[in-house]
Amino acid sequence: MSSEAACIFCKIIKGQIPSFKIVETATCYSFLDIEPIAKGHVLVIPKYHGAKLHNIPDEYLKDILPVTKKIAKALDLDIDGLEGPGYNILQNNGSIAHQVVDHVHFHLIPKRDSETGLIVGWPTTKGDMAQLAELAKDIVSKIEE
Amino acid sequence: MSSEAACIFCKIIKGQIPSFKIVETATCYSFLDIEPIAKGHVLVIPKYHGAKLHNIPDEYLKDILPVTKKIAKALDLDIDGLEGPGYNILQNNGSIAHQVVDHVHFHLIPKRDSETGLIVGWPTTKGDMAQLAELAKDIVSKIEE
Repeated sequence: MSSEAACIFCKIIKGQIPSFKIVETATCYSFLDIEPIAKGHVLVIPKYHGAKLHNIPDEYLKDILPVTKKIAKALDLDIDGLEGPGYNILQNNGSIAHQVVDHVHFHLIPKRDSETGLIVGWPTTKGDMAQLAELAKDIVSKIEE
Repeated sequence: MSSEAACIFCKIIKGQIPSFKIVETATCYSFLDIEPIAKGHVLVIPKYHGAKLHNIPDEYLKDILPVTKKIAKALDLDIDGLEGPGYNILQNNGSIAHQVVDHVHFHLIPKRDSETGLIVGWPTTKGDMAQLAELAKDIVSKIEE
């Protein structure tokens, strides 16, 4: 993992690298992605250097979704019902999951047409109920440890 | 939008439809997706009936990411560095953005190989700096209104 001193997003938070800032709070910062996959593609990041979601203390997560919500409204994406323009919130952890910069970032990506925005591939399976029951038990017991 | 009374996720929260529950707090509920795209595919939902992120009051969002983080750890996805198994957090708003059930849900999707989990298509563009500056100004002024 890059050190905080070498992290491009930490430098953006500190103003050492310029950014198109949207909203800033005590614990999070948001700015336009300069390689957008749709117009209004915004990144919302915690003011804490950690590569993946599980590295970020809860206090640095609390503003992320409220700020993202506020920006979605400002982008006129606050549409009732499922038809019309939409948006995706995506946070990737690990290279295999499409993460490039190793400082947690939430993408707010407008989805107005099939050519721009996030393209989602969804290899659905029918779950085996007995296996799912077993898996749920395993996860819960691991959480309760 | 479906009414709360007709909503399948509201029924799951109330225990009227069975689910493989993982973690529950005062404001959110999580359970296994029964049509998983990877083993350990979990949904984390607010205990508030709203179709999209912008419909959910902040108080119902506060536990979502901390709970998701906790489950990622229990799934042994808390790996240091960008190599190895990863995971995606995805929340879809609108049919065009791949939303099916009209009650906000965050997908926690393990990404262990290229065949399972979320398949991401990313139609990157090089942003025009002048246009981005203009856009940022527009969004910020809309937020400050």
